[in-house]
Amino acid sequence: MAFVNENYCNLKESFLFADIAHKVEAYSAAHPEKKIIRLGIGDVTLPLVPAVIDAMAKAVQEMGVKETFRGYGPEQGYTFLHDAIVKYYASFGVELESNEIFISDGAKSDCGNITDIFSNANTILIPDPVYPVYLDTNIMCGRKIVYMEGKPENNFLPMPDENVKADVIYLCSPNNPTGAAYTKEQLEAWVAYAMKNDAVILYDAAYEAYVADASIPRSIFVVEDAKKCAIELCSLSKTAGFTGTRCGYTVVPHALVRKTAGGKDMELNKMWLRRQTTKFNGVPYIIQRGAEAVFSEVGMAQCRENIAYYMENARLIKEGFEKIGVQCFGGVHSPYIWLKCPNGMSSWEFFDYLLDNLAIVGTPGAGFGTMGEGYFRLTGFGSRENTIEAVNRIVEGLK
Amino acid sequence: MAFVNENYCNLKESFLFADIAHKVEAYSAAHPEKKIIRLGIGDVTLPLVPAVIDAMAKAVQEMGVKETFRGYGPEQGYTFLHDAIVKYYASFGVELESNEIFISDGAKSDCGNITDIFSNANTILIPDPVYPVYLDTNIMCGRKIVYMEGKPENNFLPMPDENVKADVIYLCSPNNPTGAAYTKEQLEAWVAYAMKNDAVILYDAAYEAYVADASIPRSIFVVEDAKKCAIELCSLSKTAGFTGTRCGYTVVPHALVRKTAGGKDMELNKMWLRRQTTKFNGVPYIIQRGAEAVFSEVGMAQCRENIAYYMENARLIKEGFEKIGVQCFGGVHSPYIWLKCPNGMSSWEFFDYLLDNLAIVGTPGAGFGTMGEGYFRLTGFGSRENTIEAVNRIVEGLK
Repeated sequence: MAFVNENYCNLKESFLFADIAHKVEAYSAAHPEKKIIRLGIGDVTLPLVPAVIDAMAKAVQEMGVKETFRGYGPEQGYTFLHDAIVKYYASFGVELESNEIFISDGAKSDCGNITDIFSNANTILIPDPVYPVYLDTNIMCGRKIVYMEGKPENNFLPMPDENVKADVIYLCSPNNPTGAAYTKEQLEAWVAYAMKNDAVILYDAAYEAYVADASIPRSIFVVEDAKKCAIELCSLSKTAGFTGTRCGYTVVPHALVRKTAGGKDMELNKMWLRRQTTKFNGVPYIIQRGAEAVFSEVGMAQCRENIAYYMENARLIKEGFEKIGVQCFGGVHSPYIWLKCPNGMSSWEFFDYLLDNLAIVGTPGAGFGTMGEGYFRLTGFGSRENTIEAVNRIVEGLK
Repeated sequence: MAFVNENYCNLKESFLFADIAHKVEAYSAAHPEKKIIRLGIGDVTLPLVPAVIDAMAKAVQEMGVKETFRGYGPEQGYTFLHDAIVKYYASFGVELESNEIFISDGAKSDCGNITDIFSNANTILIPDPVYPVYLDTNIMCGRKIVYMEGKPENNFLPMPDENVKADVIYLCSPNNPTGAAYTKEQLEAWVAYAMKNDAVILYDAAYEAYVADASIPRSIFVVEDAKKCAIELCSLSKTAGFTGTRCGYTVVPHALVRKTAGGKDMELNKMWLRRQTTKFNGVPYIIQRGAEAVFSEVGMAQCRENIAYYMENARLIKEGFEKIGVQCFGGVHSPYIWLKCPNGMSSWEFFDYLLDNLAIVGTPGAGFGTMGEGYFRLTGFGSRENTIEAVNRIVEGLK
């Protein structure tokens, strides 16, 4: 008799975005004359840049001609893309070897699948509030999970606690949903904790391209010894608008070695290679050519323009709320603004308030964990015009 | 202290294709004047068909324009592609609901990831010889594996054995590597076994498009009750040359319900949806448009031409070997010819013989499992010209 994975019974159904959609629908039906502005959006809205479009258009044509057609590629990605990423990392001072980089269909997949190479006996340390994938993928394996609290007192950047024993630690910086970003010194403290406890840090750098000044690390590997205790997950989703194009990469350094329960030393790079060659068949050639173009000089310049556009939106939102005395986090090294709901409102109360009074949609912080209650997420991914209009409504309506 | 997944220590390193590459390299260096013909190739060689190229070229341009740009899509795939697949299945008499179909980056990924939703306490039944992914992905979970023997006596189509208790059963038809294909009556026997034992069949239909006549099922769902006991994995890799373009789909019927160890009934469709929405972010929009074009009338006609080309190669190889009295399996509903090595040679002896004497490269059957020893795999994926030349060399050299 086939049994199914019992751990799935422990997953909580998330109705966050469904609930938001229902409320917006109801409001829209009751007020057809109102222009609703969505600032809760976690998806990019600008199209792919010309350098990427040109590269993919060329690659599509190659696939239609026998001489340039590509069948199975290397599961871990083409060398041309590895080389581009090695060069990219070098630009902020991190040296990687080509085969420390694994190309994938995105950080969400890697973030879920990386759990495969760890023992289910590990204790997992997860920040709260958090991107729900860290939590759910570990519940699916039946692992013990402990939380660390993000709160105003630590600027939503939890730091290591020597009293907490953890084997695998999720860090996301710049953070989704709070927009907070660790300094190098803070990451050094995390690396020290991991080294002392033989823990492994899973470092989600999906928003690294939004880091606004060189003092904030764009990779955990700027920290000494990080290659002995960290895996870095990254994505082109927000760097280059690849949310619907699907390409990311994961860095598993050769220096990262951990034991099996039986005491055998294993290189995690080799384990991940084995996982990927067994359960994955690589990213489409066409998409990898598009990704390569992201890292070209012209592609980078074009992507930076889009990022600057989103970041100006974020700046305007932050400025607007601060003008009326609302406490904001994020919005500097990240497209996310994480704000304290005014007048002691709960996350959903503020959601209803913004929708019912100002026809603005955001995301209740409570949807990202217990510590998110009383907070609210807005993003810079809207259009400039709508962002300005929304900020005007907020400043007028809330002042 | 982070521990890694100990089960990885139980994986055997496979050097099959590396060993082949080394031998071919050495031969080539020693005999630079010889034209080596590769008939061992498991990858397609014809380019993508014009209908697919046109659809992807159009989709690439859409991604460069704000109004038609697509960000995150549904993890389980776009409705336009579901609809195309529902229609495709209807053409061979299988009715599916749109949300029973999950679009993915290929059957290899699904085949590996589907293990997530099952309990590790299950006993897995795997044919030998076999596509190595079935075995390795279950070793990674530490599951108990039992084998069923493919051999000339059963035409390499193992049938259920009431004395063997199995919870999850892998079937691949038409088969890689043997090319053998189950009849409807044989699949009925498997469905009856699964129903009686509350087992689940994982049915790999990656080669269904090669089925040459209507009496051989292209889907297990032509069998009554199969929706209560089977999941079907399929791919466009061989149907439409998508090996480097990456798109497949998995059918998980709503009627498929199994218990947790604690006795709770779970719909596997809902579990897989939860797995995919948590650990996967969908297939690129551009690729899904290409896949949709495969199922259009003109796309299907173009793909069928390519399949006919490969199958004519397979027919020529089979005919050549049979002319000189070598026993062949497959090659009728599959691009694979599985042959008994002549003169009692082992798989590797015959490999060396073909390479050293005729400059032809094939794949030793021993690489696919114990029962593959003494057998050899050739494929119809080469060019017509090379296939004819290889067959001439074989008929001359082995007669």
